[in-house]
Amino acid sequence: MLITFKQAASKLKAANKILITAHILPDGDAIGSTLATMQMLRALGKSAQVFIDDDVRKNLHVLPHFEEIRRPVDGEKFDADLLLILDTSPDRIGNVAKMTDAPILNIDHHVTNKNDAGDLYVEPDAAATCEIIFKLAGELNVKITPEIATCLYTGLATDTGFFQFSNTRAETFKTASELVNCGVKPNIISEQMERRSAAEVLSMRTALNSLKIFYGGKVAGMFLDLPTMQNCDSTEGFIDLIRVIDGVDVAFMISERSEKVCRVSMRSKGVDVSKVANELGGGGHIRAAGCTLYTTLDDAEKILVAAIGKAL
Amino acid sequence: MLITFKQAASKLKAANKILITAHILPDGDAIGSTLATMQMLRALGKSAQVFIDDDVRKNLHVLPHFEEIRRPVDGEKFDADLLLILDTSPDRIGNVAKMTDAPILNIDHHVTNKNDAGDLYVEPDAAATCEIIFKLAGELNVKITPEIATCLYTGLATDTGFFQFSNTRAETFKTASELVNCGVKPNIISEQMERRSAAEVLSMRTALNSLKIFYGGKVAGMFLDLPTMQNCDSTEGFIDLIRVIDGVDVAFMISERSEKVCRVSMRSKGVDVSKVANELGGGGHIRAAGCTLYTTLDDAEKILVAAIGKAL
Repeated sequence: MLITFKQAASKLKAANKILITAHILPDGDAIGSTLATMQMLRALGKSAQVFIDDDVRKNLHVLPHFEEIRRPVDGEKFDADLLLILDTSPDRIGNVAKMTDAPILNIDHHVTNKNDAGDLYVEPDAAATCEIIFKLAGELNVKITPEIATCLYTGLATDTGFFQFSNTRAETFKTASELVNCGVKPNIISEQMERRSAAEVLSMRTALNSLKIFYGGKVAGMFLDLPTMQNCDSTEGFIDLIRVIDGVDVAFMISERSEKVCRVSMRSKGVDVSKVANELGGGGHIRAAGCTLYTTLDDAEKILVAAIGKAL
Repeated sequence: MLITFKQAASKLKAANKILITAHILPDGDAIGSTLATMQMLRALGKSAQVFIDDDVRKNLHVLPHFEEIRRPVDGEKFDADLLLILDTSPDRIGNVAKMTDAPILNIDHHVTNKNDAGDLYVEPDAAATCEIIFKLAGELNVKITPEIATCLYTGLATDTGFFQFSNTRAETFKTASELVNCGVKPNIISEQMERRSAAEVLSMRTALNSLKIFYGGKVAGMFLDLPTMQNCDSTEGFIDLIRVIDGVDVAFMISERSEKVCRVSMRSKGVDVSKVANELGGGGHIRAAGCTLYTTLDDAEKILVAAIGKAL
């Protein structure tokens, strides 16, 4: 059921033992918002614990209190009077869903969240869930410590691509400003977030070496085969290297995840790539979409380039 | 002579024909601050014209009123009652210095500005000259149009590495927030600023392919020879690709600009690279420094790697 911001705050005030979670494949906003909320609720004298049912990428391990995040073990239960789900709907929290029967409070900024399994406060204009949690700190009268501010800033910065995506609004910068006043060091967080392993940089080089241009420069693609992918933790940001090329409308990357399983990512400046992805069994947004093609890398290239050609 | 912010504003109010300029090798803050100030002074009914004695990189050509920037032709004079120099001291404005004998008003955020050829207002805490010009608009009672805001935001964003450098402070984000309220679209400016030519991306690939690791992973270097450099407009951001590698303290790039002229750029996470640069006849800051070595690319590598080794 949809509830208001004030109602969401009241439910948190009324709770005493809160299990906090976010989505699997957690990003900076998932980890930042859960850790910040945990600290805020503890400051109010409540018991609060974060569980995330997935590995977390290494860059985020530096966040304050990260070491307290737990992953549920098989069949584990947790004594809670509220299950707080942040940055996602209840269907993407893995086995945390089985840990408690406590009522659900769900706070999110994704307009696609249609959760009806619990109370939902959704604010689609917010750039990040951390932007909502910042306001919640005010509503709950919690002092924002440098540690809480660091968690919130990380979510805000990563979910906006460091203030470069279209979800960046005046309120986002205002929140960032106040978080800096609370003790955040933007340059230190940026440095931590942009760190890459040497293996990742070598994979990026392999990707760049595979660059092919199609349709007279309107389309650019990169290709990562299975051996390369097996040595690569993350391909985050690789596609940006070619997306920025002058004249390129659609950039794509195909990565072979296992034999005859190729993951496709697309970015666009004009063409609706969600249509291309949909046609190939995937989905996404106008400017960023993806799909999986169950064939060889060579065949995947042919299929994808033909589909993009139709869309141009 | 050092003057106050209010005195700087008074001098602008008193002037009627203002020649505005900034440094050669102009960046986003130089172009953004001059174009914004030109529009502001014109809004006050004054005559104002920007001259820059250099080429401007293509990404900045999209800024409002960019097409009105002029480059002085040989011996050209300009009738002005004030020479407004932004974002640099008077020794880095090329032939614009010869265009007028009008008194100089110099506004800058570089702490290194020691100009005594005219009135100087310097605010070293400001992240960008555009941050000062934003405050000046308030002092002069000029409405910030979306066009002025776009110029100011571009300077603010580029001089802070899109809010990722250590000069980013609470005030910077507050200014960005107000500029968005004035009509700035952060994502559109980001997209325009990050555009690269295909040739640039191919040079980046060449650079990445030349990656060498030294001192057990503490130092990473890239090398661009003369033929590659001749096909490359800009190497901006190349060094960042390897600076972010886990464990790398010093990243460097050596680019051959002509026969036996090698330009060295260094970035560091800990070591004071300005000392290394000084020792080799260059200069810079603790974390970012450079020098020129008058020898072959191979020799430059040996000399630089040895010097960095001593500093580690």
